[in-house]
Amino acid sequence: MGKAGAEVRRKGFAHERELAKRLYEEGFAVIRAPASGSKLKRIFYPDVVAIYKGKTLVFEVKAYSKLDYVYLEEEKIKRIVDFSERAGGRSFIAVKIIGSGEWRVIPVTELERTKKGYYSLKISKIEKAQLLEDLIKKVKSDVND
Amino acid sequence: MGKAGAEVRRKGFAHERELAKRLYEEGFAVIRAPASGSKLKRIFYPDVVAIYKGKTLVFEVKAYSKLDYVYLEEEKIKRIVDFSERAGGRSFIAVKIIGSGEWRVIPVTELERTKKGYYSLKISKIEKAQLLEDLIKKVKSDVND
Repeated sequence: MGKAGAEVRRKGFAHERELAKRLYEEGFAVIRAPASGSKLKRIFYPDVVAIYKGKTLVFEVKAYSKLDYVYLEEEKIKRIVDFSERAGGRSFIAVKIIGSGEWRVIPVTELERTKKGYYSLKISKIEKAQLLEDLIKKVKSDVND
Repeated sequence: MGKAGAEVRRKGFAHERELAKRLYEEGFAVIRAPASGSKLKRIFYPDVVAIYKGKTLVFEVKAYSKLDYVYLEEEKIKRIVDFSERAGGRSFIAVKIIGSGEWRVIPVTELERTKKGYYSLKISKIEKAQLLEDLIKKVKSDVND
């Protein structure tokens, strides 16, 4: 990975950390994937896994300076879905619009297949998506029912 | 960490990988802690976390060439317990007797406080402990009930 690539990755990592921190503060057990460069990267891990009283949420993290299409490799989606099925949880794309402080969470089932090997998420779906705090509230109220 | 320390850590890591592999093959979603040296080590992670349809198991891994007392720092135990309480799961010490291929799993509640800041596990408790495969069977049958 070149210098520019490493820089992008480092920034991506800061967003993952922010998401992990918010979930931790809300009482979740949280695990973040190891940084690239770590030997563990040979194995697949979701960006962030958060567990609250038996409910598992799996996140792929994306951060943009403005609302934009989200592209994801099919292989990555397959692995996230496999992980959350094993865990009996749900998987989401967590989209952060940098500067807004807002995180929107979109279930991976909302992704649409575009060109071969890729999935994408329309801007309109991101705009209408649930806020992270509402997802957290929902998980907690489901557990406490 | 000196050369000897790094070697021990590498071996410990191989045992964690074996435990993770067995749980993965049994259908669990599995996450291992990053290797030491990784920046992520500043944050606490259990050695192995395994989730099966909403049931979370948290493991601290110990491998010995022969049956022996297990010593653990209080701080580590606190963190494992905090993690599994958040997750609504259970935490175990997974003890491998190298060469036997056997893993015994002991709930952290079986630990006894010894000298200040440390917990230990008696050999007799390890000998009588549940085998990993029996724990796995139990978790699966609980889920499918």
